[in-house]
Amino acid sequence: MSNPNPEGPISKERTSEDPVKSDRISNALKELRQYFGTEALQSGSQINPDFGHDEMETVYHLPDILVRPGNTEEVAQIMRIADRYEVPVVARGGGTGLVGGAVAVEGGIMIDLAGMNKIIGIDVTNAMLSTQPGVLLKDVAAYARDHGFLYAPDPGEKTATIGGNISTNAGGMRAVKYGVTRNSVEALTVVTASGDIVNLGGIVSKNSSGFDLKDLIIGSEGTLGLVTEARLKLFPLPKYSSSLLIPFEDYRAAISNVPRILSTGVRPTALEFFEEDSIALWENYTHESFPEKGHQAYLLLTFDGASQEAIEEAYEQVAELCLAHEAADVFVLDDEATAAQVWRARDSFLEAFKNSTPQMDEIDAVVPVGALADMVDFTHSYSEQSGIRIGGFGHAGNGNLHLYICRDDLSDEEWRNKLRLAFDALYGKACELQGKISGEHGIGYAKRDYLVATTQPQVLTMMRAVKRALDPKNILNPHKVI
Amino acid sequence: MSNPNPEGPISKERTSEDPVKSDRISNALKELRQYFGTEALQSGSQINPDFGHDEMETVYHLPDILVRPGNTEEVAQIMRIADRYEVPVVARGGGTGLVGGAVAVEGGIMIDLAGMNKIIGIDVTNAMLSTQPGVLLKDVAAYARDHGFLYAPDPGEKTATIGGNISTNAGGMRAVKYGVTRNSVEALTVVTASGDIVNLGGIVSKNSSGFDLKDLIIGSEGTLGLVTEARLKLFPLPKYSSSLLIPFEDYRAAISNVPRILSTGVRPTALEFFEEDSIALWENYTHESFPEKGHQAYLLLTFDGASQEAIEEAYEQVAELCLAHEAADVFVLDDEATAAQVWRARDSFLEAFKNSTPQMDEIDAVVPVGALADMVDFTHSYSEQSGIRIGGFGHAGNGNLHLYICRDDLSDEEWRNKLRLAFDALYGKACELQGKISGEHGIGYAKRDYLVATTQPQVLTMMRAVKRALDPKNILNPHKVI
Repeated sequence: MSNPNPEGPISKERTSEDPVKSDRISNALKELRQYFGTEALQSGSQINPDFGHDEMETVYHLPDILVRPGNTEEVAQIMRIADRYEVPVVARGGGTGLVGGAVAVEGGIMIDLAGMNKIIGIDVTNAMLSTQPGVLLKDVAAYARDHGFLYAPDPGEKTATIGGNISTNAGGMRAVKYGVTRNSVEALTVVTASGDIVNLGGIVSKNSSGFDLKDLIIGSEGTLGLVTEARLKLFPLPKYSSSLLIPFEDYRAAISNVPRILSTGVRPTALEFFEEDSIALWENYTHESFPEKGHQAYLLLTFDGASQEAIEEAYEQVAELCLAHEAADVFVLDDEATAAQVWRARDSFLEAFKNSTPQMDEIDAVVPVGALADMVDFTHSYSEQSGIRIGGFGHAGNGNLHLYICRDDLSDEEWRNKLRLAFDALYGKACELQGKISGEHGIGYAKRDYLVATTQPQVLTMMRAVKRALDPKNILNPHKVI
Repeated sequence: MSNPNPEGPISKERTSEDPVKSDRISNALKELRQYFGTEALQSGSQINPDFGHDEMETVYHLPDILVRPGNTEEVAQIMRIADRYEVPVVARGGGTGLVGGAVAVEGGIMIDLAGMNKIIGIDVTNAMLSTQPGVLLKDVAAYARDHGFLYAPDPGEKTATIGGNISTNAGGMRAVKYGVTRNSVEALTVVTASGDIVNLGGIVSKNSSGFDLKDLIIGSEGTLGLVTEARLKLFPLPKYSSSLLIPFEDYRAAISNVPRILSTGVRPTALEFFEEDSIALWENYTHESFPEKGHQAYLLLTFDGASQEAIEEAYEQVAELCLAHEAADVFVLDDEATAAQVWRARDSFLEAFKNSTPQMDEIDAVVPVGALADMVDFTHSYSEQSGIRIGGFGHAGNGNLHLYICRDDLSDEEWRNKLRLAFDALYGKACELQGKISGEHGIGYAKRDYLVATTQPQVLTMMRAVKRALDPKNILNPHKVI
């Protein structure tokens, strides 16, 4: 995949031409060398080019310095040096971001947190887990499961780090029942812009003791502080779980059942929506066969709970409701292998889209659940009328759509123009429907202009005032979010 | 109840002796008179003395100006005038606070939001309710119920305003299952210190679009902005609900079942703890008879859900568990009148304590659930050894205790000294157990010194930086929280 960036001019130069900045960087490097050996510290051409981009590859720039701290104190040490020489710092986890949030667009120091990958421990009585930020989501989930607990957030990208999940307030499949990452973070250890180490939140489930700085850090994409340790809330592992696959001949009918299901009082764990194009691309990508085909759209639900009877009662109620409202059928995925395959498919639709086109970009808009059908309608008609392929699927229970704008055989110029127009149109529609630019992927670098364009100027003023308050030298992930 | 304030010197003077401040206040008053008639605007001795204190009456000071806006624009108008003349502003709702948060300790303008008491409407498809801040919690709850929905937060004080609940991030009984007020607020209209009107959050259930200013405002007790409208998340009204009353001969045995119950995967809606003294005081206060007496301690639980079978299955599991762990008995409160009486008692324990002593003050500490038994133990032995009566009860499922330190027949001096020592000891213990000063009542004026004493200096620095960023002239509820 090539990487022209349609969002704005990003130079591939490593170091700024600005001699003052060069000086600051070499001074910082000199000082960092006193604390970090060659294994943990690289600069200039030693840095692997992969550190210049994330998963989406639409934003590209390498840092001047790459450093791999092993603990919170070392991160604080780096920040104190960065503060002294006013060198920008960007933290990176798994590099699975989609909006350039972890790209060093101004060079400077990249802190690679992937090596801080130890799970510190579990507190069974208080149902909490302590972890470093570089642990992969799948490893957090497996560790919790091995101890009889559920770590509830379940974003599709299981090789993202937990630190990245916290920085973008990732959502995922189970947000319908358990909420987003924010709802599962009890406490954070954070290194501030000036290199202080602070503990925010607490291992308590209620707290009215001063300003909620923990939630300010969550979702701030490394622009207000660096998360170096997290205490995560766990749930008892649900003993039983069942999935339903519900096909519809018409995507509007599928979506219109979403608010209906939520209003029953039965709360599914997950409530996903996808269309036949996603299935076809996935089959083509994996050479597997999806167990149920030939319908225009699908809802995929999971129910979990402490008893099989309670789950059955819940899903029967949903099944009846959907059958009364245009569902073509209802499949209970009680065969474990089939359920696993369907969810594996859902988890890799993004990869299937990526595989289907030489280049793509994404929209992660979220709209009120009641407006989801309008948003999907608009996407279909815009795609048709503008001649650019837009596919997608969504966390329907949260009104969160992932839309992929595919380049296919468009020329460079056509692609840039059509992509920009599609972004304008789709984000415009989402905001008209009282939605937001990003449900879970964040703003990063790529979506910044859209956040600015769709946010009240007075709110941006407040955000910038908060940014200045916590990072007065603007060294934490500059040019990101706002 | 008399009101000497043990926390610090608060003068009863209305207007500052400072002539510059007097000038600023009379200029602001002159300008406010252009917008507000005599009904909506009072000053000096026209102001009812009740506006000088809250429910706890430990902090007393009257504002110089009392103004009653009818809408957001009028609140913004007041803030623009306050900003121009640098006059402090405190917002007040129901006056049911317990920590002096809504007391005008520096005089200035009090904005009485109790008149902004309209529920704006309900969005059934997206399960959301819009309301002005002056609506009482009980009216929000009733309105939701009448439309087939549950407004989940359920603090004991039903005549608090919803704006007050948001400002303190109130918790309440159902937080075990549904979370605290923060978790039920989707969006806020806020008037800033300079009189801008901003919309924070969104009617979406996931959001990664910029900094989380909404959660920064929630729980900030009117020090960062004034909430003039809120969109609240609703749940489908649970069709069935049952309560269990479980007596124990030993309070430690009762509490030790709390983490055990939470670890089953069965999630009660409420999980309360109280001791025999609360029941005795309540009986004395109401002249009613509590249906089950003669035990040292009790757990009170509610379960709600979409089917009676699921609820029964859940509470049977909990009943068996408790009976296997020292419960004296288990009562299913299936008689509606008895269940209502027990919960009414629980809701008025605070009043019963107040009625039992000429003066009292409270502690709202929250500790990890696993540390609750140690906290209650410590409270009992401290009370015994120091000769000051301390009673209490708690939202055990959240580790949140409400402890009442009772003056009884202590002299003024004894009371001040013993109260101060008790605060020091109990807050000290809570923090040693990794707890926090306040679970849901907030910091206000009365607990400020304890927040400062128990919070990392670097965290206080961050909080103060955020305060300066959003309220550079320090006019929003000065001297509160930090």
